Amino acid sequence: MDGFPFSTEVRIRFAETDAQGIAHHASFVVWLEVARVAFLERYAGGYQAIRERGIEALTTEVSLRYHRAASFDERLTVWTRCVDMRGARFTYEYAITRGDELVADGYTRHATVDAATYRPTRVPDWLADAISRA
Amino acid sequence: MDGFPFSTEVRIRFAETDAQGIAHHASFVVWLEVARVAFLERYAGGYQAIRERGIEALTTEVSLRYHRAASFDERLTVWTRCVDMRGARFTYEYAITRGDELVADGYTRHATVDAATYRPTRVPDWLADAISRA
Amino acid sequence: MDGFPFSTEVRIRFAETDAQGIAHHASFVVWLEVARVAFLERYAGGYQAIRERGIEALTTEVSLRYHRAASFDERLTVWTRCVDMRGARFTYEYAITRGDELVADGYTRHATVDAATYRPTRVPDWLADAISRA
Amino acid sequence: MDGFPFSTEVRIRFAETDAQGIAHHASFVVWLEVARVAFLERYAGGYQAIRERGIEALTTEVSLRYHRAASFDERLTVWTRCVDMRGARFTYEYAITRGDELVADGYTRHATVDAATYRPTRVPDWLADAISRA
Repeated sequence: MDGFPFSTEVRIRFAETDAQGIAHHASFVVWLEVARVAFLERYAGGYQAIRERGIEALTTEVSLRYHRAASFDERLTVWTRCVDMRGARFTYEYAITRGDELVADGYTRHATVDAATYRPTRVPDWLADAISRA
Repeated sequence: MDGFPFSTEVRIRFAETDAQGIAHHASFVVWLEVARVAFLERYAGGYQAIRERGIEALTTEVSLRYHRAASFDERLTVWTRCVDMRGARFTYEYAITRGDELVADGYTRHATVDAATYRPTRVPDWLADAISRA
Repeated sequence: MDGFPFSTEVRIRFAETDAQGIAHHASFVVWLEVARVAFLERYAGGYQAIRERGIEALTTEVSLRYHRAASFDERLTVWTRCVDMRGARFTYEYAITRGDELVADGYTRHATVDAATYRPTRVPDWLADAISRA
Repeated sequence: MDGFPFSTEVRIRFAETDAQGIAHHASFVVWLEVARVAFLERYAGGYQAIRERGIEALTTEVSLRYHRAASFDERLTVWTRCVDMRGARFTYEYAITRGDELVADGYTRHATVDAATYRPTRVPDWLADAISRA
């Protein structure tokens, strides 16, 4: 998808559906996280490695627009890019597609904190560099 | 809380925490739904009743800003109001507080559909009237 | 319910349902945990207090039999008792009812560990005493 | 793994962890379902196909023993086999491993019902045949 350097696939689990017969809207929030973990694995050595270097990323904002319902067992593509990294803050943007259809889109904002004190800390250069290569 | 006619309480479950030791950000999305169900019970005879009258409400947008972390077993108050009901669309606004602190705030947008066909259908008058009384 | 000194209520959330239109079977596992937390609050000063005293309880076994389906917005009663506390191990038994109907029953087993080392450690006397009063 | 004809992989999501820093025990119940869906896709044309032929499978029992903790981002293998199919009932057995280690094992029991009436119905021959080929 145009402008998105990275994508990951999710397959809708039965546990992620609800009594409307579709994927529950909170499931999408978890898929964005799955996509960020895959993104960081690809570009920055993995989220676990980041945590081991003393950095945690908190989620400070989630925004999702749902354009089409999605059903059990469907395979969705979560397109992901990291934008606006400055200081201790950065933003991911997402488009979730099923084939050619846009199922949902949105963004999440994050703040890096020191893993010991949970105080805000600048995104370290090695991480900013890694992500800017995406 | 000013401007919010209604609130409901949630208590953070251990299953809703994550390895950062705090409530996972997707848990908040579920609490907004818990609050909507409580809101509709109070003002419109319950969500189940609405479904039995042939109406489903789809979630078309979720937006949440997280201001403070929340921990296992804490009691949070979810302040809720319904705004901007027009045609088949309506919006809820939320403020989640712990005592005097604002933990998160946000909104969700919804569309009413016919429960049989999942085609958009106007919010029925009885439901709009009930909610406008809130 | 006979032989159960304690019960707590859960109300089925929409997010806990699945595309079969009923509460997903994994949701029940979370409700058992909600019931243990309420049980410990009543009899032992709360699970958080136990954690703060350096003890964690790991879940080592879950067993659940589902007798009837349960639906969105229903209120269920989770009857709970703690049995067989010995050394570092203890067992909870549960019956989940809806009015007079038995919806599910089962048990969970747990092991106490030192919160710093995650090594097994005996259930402390103060906790065993508190629970035996149940 | 000996005696298990089939396995599928899961990777532990951050949302599946809890404040003990490990995968929450209820997450395993969802992974068993993911494994069943993959099993049915391999041997019986997929769970969706079964539902479309008018059959639902209810979960009537879950039993899991946890032998080792599992952490965020770890890859686990869920070994799966279907045993004891008779009448409207069947059982799956599971072993969840991480490399050579047994992380958990257990079983689930299920009953087939008519998707329209939710009345028990025999496992259809085409499905029993497909699974017996596993």
